[in-house]
Amino acid sequence: MQRSPLALPFPPIGPIAGVRIGTASVPYKQWTRDCVTLIELAPGTAVAGVTTRSRCPSPEVELCRAKLPGGRARGLIVNAGNSNAFTGLTGRQAAAAQAARAAERLGCRADEVFSASTGVIGVPLPVDLALAGVDQAHARLGAADWLDAANAIGTTDTFPKAATASAMVRGAPVRLTGIVKGSGMIAPDMATMLGFIFSDAAVAPSLWQQMLSAAVASTFNAITVDSDTSTSDTVLAFATGAAGHPELAAMDDPGADALAAALADVCRQLAILVVRDGEGAQKLIEVTVTGAADDASAKRVALSIANSPLVKTAIAGGDANWGRVVMAVGKAGEPAERDLLSIRFGDTLVAQAGAVVPGYDEAPVAAHLAGQEVRIGVDLGLGTGRALVWTCDLTHGYININADYRS
Amino acid sequence: MQRSPLALPFPPIGPIAGVRIGTASVPYKQWTRDCVTLIELAPGTAVAGVTTRSRCPSPEVELCRAKLPGGRARGLIVNAGNSNAFTGLTGRQAAAAQAARAAERLGCRADEVFSASTGVIGVPLPVDLALAGVDQAHARLGAADWLDAANAIGTTDTFPKAATASAMVRGAPVRLTGIVKGSGMIAPDMATMLGFIFSDAAVAPSLWQQMLSAAVASTFNAITVDSDTSTSDTVLAFATGAAGHPELAAMDDPGADALAAALADVCRQLAILVVRDGEGAQKLIEVTVTGAADDASAKRVALSIANSPLVKTAIAGGDANWGRVVMAVGKAGEPAERDLLSIRFGDTLVAQAGAVVPGYDEAPVAAHLAGQEVRIGVDLGLGTGRALVWTCDLTHGYININADYRS
Repeated sequence: MQRSPLALPFPPIGPIAGVRIGTASVPYKQWTRDCVTLIELAPGTAVAGVTTRSRCPSPEVELCRAKLPGGRARGLIVNAGNSNAFTGLTGRQAAAAQAARAAERLGCRADEVFSASTGVIGVPLPVDLALAGVDQAHARLGAADWLDAANAIGTTDTFPKAATASAMVRGAPVRLTGIVKGSGMIAPDMATMLGFIFSDAAVAPSLWQQMLSAAVASTFNAITVDSDTSTSDTVLAFATGAAGHPELAAMDDPGADALAAALADVCRQLAILVVRDGEGAQKLIEVTVTGAADDASAKRVALSIANSPLVKTAIAGGDANWGRVVMAVGKAGEPAERDLLSIRFGDTLVAQAGAVVPGYDEAPVAAHLAGQEVRIGVDLGLGTGRALVWTCDLTHGYININADYRS
Repeated sequence: MQRSPLALPFPPIGPIAGVRIGTASVPYKQWTRDCVTLIELAPGTAVAGVTTRSRCPSPEVELCRAKLPGGRARGLIVNAGNSNAFTGLTGRQAAAAQAARAAERLGCRADEVFSASTGVIGVPLPVDLALAGVDQAHARLGAADWLDAANAIGTTDTFPKAATASAMVRGAPVRLTGIVKGSGMIAPDMATMLGFIFSDAAVAPSLWQQMLSAAVASTFNAITVDSDTSTSDTVLAFATGAAGHPELAAMDDPGADALAAALADVCRQLAILVVRDGEGAQKLIEVTVTGAADDASAKRVALSIANSPLVKTAIAGGDANWGRVVMAVGKAGEPAERDLLSIRFGDTLVAQAGAVVPGYDEAPVAAHLAGQEVRIGVDLGLGTGRALVWTCDLTHGYININADYRS
């Protein structure tokens, strides 16, 4: 697969205290690359998570949901190349067996091991390979780094994706590092692809969950590649406590704001990386909607634009076809008044008050659309609701990838 | 534009008593083809209509809505190549002036002339051309036939689309003929493209509207090409009364059932023709959902499948990737139980009870997917709700057409 033209270089990231990484190669697919990732977490690590709202979740998603209330994690397993979704009892047993094997190797309880799988739907995870993968990865714990892990969790991804941030919490420098995979079957408002964030912060699980849920709403849940939602979407965040500061327990504790901001920053960076690796993407599109009745309405309008095949193909073609933005606003089913609407491409006001602006000059818009980062701004002129959503264009590359994915 | 491989031959259709057709060529675009259609309707013609639910409707849509309560029509004007949508006061004045000119030529009131325009959004209808088009088309009334009209109303359509049906109403043979345009920006539940149906039936406007609204729900509003909804969507049905039978006034009048069934038949044929001309379509896809909590829920699940880019690209690739159907059911947000779900491609049961069927043989499915007409069946196993929706595959042709539509 050709590397996305929107790819960013992998950032330099050091280790997170309390986190050890191992990867393994077991042939779920005809791959020679590593496809099982095992991450060991220090005792006492807090865990938070958000999973897909799909009505057909994978066994791994169900296991995460069952384990999250415990609030503690000692391990994470990620399988790439097989999502194990919609595989009935066989798949559920395979997922449980793999977590049990990892717990045995790590010396912890099975309900402290979280797992996630990504790949084709409907093929049960081969349990022998899954167990062998855990064994191999465990033997290599500490030998792999973030780049290895970011590569090993990918499927149709064309580049490894990671982000990092830091915060000062009660005098202690705290680090956060996240890795993410995702390229297609990406839609918001129902969690998202697979994302894993690690920190050495000391934070109570309930507060960590509160921070993660808030961050996900405006980051992972504000991106869309193709409006399709995976059965395996999972974001997990782990905080090992190794930074050594007193544990944060509530949002008004000193330093909690800084940690929440850093977590949101990592989530935002990772979410945008997913869009940058959107299947076939040639352009990153940022859709801002203001003046809506409320924020939720703004987000639905923004997603109507971001999910419109006609808007996305127009951007792919570098075509300043703002009429398609009008169409997408109109179909969203949200409060909107045609004659109050204004539309910008980049910094150029294109239409307002129900018509194109007088003396509209397409040249600066065409220049903006020729770039790799396109901004569409819509003001509905009704209220103070606003939303920001990221997507990519719809190109021949998307068809190429998806018209023949399995073979 | 290459003719759709799913095109059907234009059917042989005779005239409808009380209907005369004229077309004209005025250069809204760099076209030499006719692009204005004027249809004269006999005095007393009943009219019914359904228009887009877009919040950004065109002036023509607003005019139709204002005139429909009158229940009577003497004329219809259709402009192709310019939708006149989102053109402010200038566009509203142009639409009103064109209807007034047609009324003058036809010797009727302006509120008895309905109009519809289709094409690029945001460019005001040039009023001089619009008036000249009416004059030219009026001078040619009676010289054009259904094929001329079906061609003249098209934009990115690759073949002319018409359907016909008949019914016996109180001993009188009644005819119905419809024409339709549409290929992209097609999504259901908010009316649809442009469709015009003509009959010589004698029917009260309120009953005619009742019949049309019922027919549209399961036909035009059950298709989708790309999930995008036009600002100009309009379906109008005209009944001239020339068949001579006593006027139908209520659904329990003898013959009303037959007329309603024939109207629904024409709507269904026309709706499927639009999908057959879906931009880039290589395959017609029929999605049936049964076992849903109720019919409305079934329709939302069916549309989630029919609008999924991943399902549509899989079908384009002839790929029996039923996991993507699971994904689309899961994301629909409707009541669904993974372990009660069953999925068919063509006549082959592929998955049931939350997993692939034992001994699944992909060969008959692959053979079915190699054809031009693909059937996807989903049973949710919950209730008696059902729905039938039509769509097409998503191919390179769609990108080719829409990444550079305006130029």
